[in-house]
Amino acid sequence: MRTQVAIVGAGPAGLFLAHLLRAAGIDGVVLERRSREHVEGRVRAGILEQGTVDVLARLGLDGRLRRDGLVHTGTNLTADGETVRIDLAALTGGRAVTVYGQQEVMRDLFDAAEARGLPVVFGAEDLRLHDIEGDRPGVSYRTQAGEGRLACDFIAGCDGFHGVSRRAIPPGVLDIVERVYPFGWLGILADVPPAAHELVYASHANGFALASMRSETRSRYYIQCGIEERVEDWPDGRFWDELCLRLGPALADHVVRGPSFEKGIAPLRSFVAEPMRHGRLFLAGDAAHIVPPTGAKGLNLAVSDVVMLAEALAEFYRGRSTAGLDGYSARALARVWKAERFSWWFTRLMHRFPDATGFDRRMQVAELAYLGTSRAAQTVLAENYVGLPLDPV
Amino acid sequence: MRTQVAIVGAGPAGLFLAHLLRAAGIDGVVLERRSREHVEGRVRAGILEQGTVDVLARLGLDGRLRRDGLVHTGTNLTADGETVRIDLAALTGGRAVTVYGQQEVMRDLFDAAEARGLPVVFGAEDLRLHDIEGDRPGVSYRTQAGEGRLACDFIAGCDGFHGVSRRAIPPGVLDIVERVYPFGWLGILADVPPAAHELVYASHANGFALASMRSETRSRYYIQCGIEERVEDWPDGRFWDELCLRLGPALADHVVRGPSFEKGIAPLRSFVAEPMRHGRLFLAGDAAHIVPPTGAKGLNLAVSDVVMLAEALAEFYRGRSTAGLDGYSARALARVWKAERFSWWFTRLMHRFPDATGFDRRMQVAELAYLGTSRAAQTVLAENYVGLPLDPV
Repeated sequence: MRTQVAIVGAGPAGLFLAHLLRAAGIDGVVLERRSREHVEGRVRAGILEQGTVDVLARLGLDGRLRRDGLVHTGTNLTADGETVRIDLAALTGGRAVTVYGQQEVMRDLFDAAEARGLPVVFGAEDLRLHDIEGDRPGVSYRTQAGEGRLACDFIAGCDGFHGVSRRAIPPGVLDIVERVYPFGWLGILADVPPAAHELVYASHANGFALASMRSETRSRYYIQCGIEERVEDWPDGRFWDELCLRLGPALADHVVRGPSFEKGIAPLRSFVAEPMRHGRLFLAGDAAHIVPPTGAKGLNLAVSDVVMLAEALAEFYRGRSTAGLDGYSARALARVWKAERFSWWFTRLMHRFPDATGFDRRMQVAELAYLGTSRAAQTVLAENYVGLPLDPV
Repeated sequence: MRTQVAIVGAGPAGLFLAHLLRAAGIDGVVLERRSREHVEGRVRAGILEQGTVDVLARLGLDGRLRRDGLVHTGTNLTADGETVRIDLAALTGGRAVTVYGQQEVMRDLFDAAEARGLPVVFGAEDLRLHDIEGDRPGVSYRTQAGEGRLACDFIAGCDGFHGVSRRAIPPGVLDIVERVYPFGWLGILADVPPAAHELVYASHANGFALASMRSETRSRYYIQCGIEERVEDWPDGRFWDELCLRLGPALADHVVRGPSFEKGIAPLRSFVAEPMRHGRLFLAGDAAHIVPPTGAKGLNLAVSDVVMLAEALAEFYRGRSTAGLDGYSARALARVWKAERFSWWFTRLMHRFPDATGFDRRMQVAELAYLGTSRAAQTVLAENYVGLPLDPV
């Protein structure tokens, strides 16, 4: 089998890229280790930047999003009984975020891939990248039907943090920086109406909490927890009690309790591997970088990566110019680092750190107080939250 | 001797307060342990916020300032050959800072104190505060003329970090938070024209550097150094070489070298003691809080403290209302904490920390890159640099 671009991984980065390449008239084949059900079932982020919504619209994939997505023109920070609303729209010239779960995004991408005949190979195990440093790269794999080999011009490594693509780059090539945070997020999904119409990020002596949602009838709540804690330690009753405590009495009054149907603990990590290109292999999304979930940048960064990669590939196939491909890593990383900075800042602002000094804690309080009174500080939060431009001037 | 307000310390906080009280028709006596020459000779900050300049103007003390002060409508950050100019005036609706050394401010304050007959007792040793929890407080002291005792209604503790005022508050009353930074600033004064018309804050692999000035013929330069280092280790030649390296070749070309006539190493510390009032004792300036020098907030904070204290005292003497006095600590601290936050942020952004991880370092780079492209981020820096309002809405 031969294609122009072999796309490793059918998560958001891979599927968005497949659609973007199709729109540019470029052939691609997606190779995915797991099943569609598995990939689509993964519970991940649910906040789409304006730019991500724009890409879905450009691809003609925003039908359900327009119907079911909740446009949020503001977001909220609360601490010690004081709530600051960040008026995203007013502070960013009308931009907003849209609440629409990654599971819904994946369903739309998969449905359209089927309808448009984008080739996706599921259950492709033992994926191996070949000759990424040469000019005839390929990917070999094994399915129930037997061994497969995909020859291609370029490989897009969209297979996430644990995938094979980044590891296919020889040792010593990548510069890796990482920070693992000393806590996790315990998250639940429950079919109850959300406590508030917008998200509320709460700072509390016991730790961070987040009131979020997937729809007007499905709530998504998180609380900061120790990395050693187990889901079994958190029966629903204990979770709801702790959540309500951290959100504060005013918001807790509006929390509707109900049985959780999903409950999990996720670690928090900042991670960047650079450059994002080696030879004919281009990394995108979680394969190259991880952000902590505070501010919901992960999925959105994957989309901005593949928008840039698709532009570079289109430039190549249109005119054989490698300028875009050569510039891809630097261009993508410029935005990645800013999103890493924002996610790190927002994480540090809102969480309790076990090793925090009294001074560190007072700086959190001072920053929240400053945010409450400074339009400029609110604008910084807002412009990052709705998503920085692809290429700032 | 009896007065309404005993002012302990003739530094900026004490002298500004004495003038502000006189303008409000309130009697005060300043007690200072050292001589005028000593106090006036101390080399300290040289950047006045707009609000500080406004206070000097209000007091009719801005004659020399208007003539000799350098109004700066911008400031600069440089790293790795890239310089970002922060257009203070454009970003803050026309506000600016004024370069005018603390030594000059003190001279103006002392000259005017003499001319206006403000009582200042120099050489007042063995200062002791009495009965600060009762309603007949006083300060005893000893001069060459003998023992003295000043009876008063209130005591203003303006005697700095090492003064007796804060220590007169019983143990357990104050909540103290502190951070000592793992480096110092080695600073020189030299009568050479400054390398640039505006300040340049430089981030370099060897550490921070700052190109500043006192006038068009007097330069003030700083470099980050280890806290264990000694002035003797830094002969002028070594200092100039290291400074030029850190400022980068473009700016180094404009550095005019010359003999330093002042050279010293200062530690960097963040410190806040709260509340800023205990009984009839009110703390102001360095007696209550210290900021690291990055951003030059120390003197300016002292001024905003005593403006608030003078307003509260005037309210008391006009109508016997204690509301202003009762609210002084909270009002002053609201601004103090924001200045602490800014000074901490600016210090962290620009210095090399011995314990910084690769991720920490990349966050510095990312924040500088973000500052270079975001008007909102530049506005945050600018509004803090020119000075936040006394009471934000």
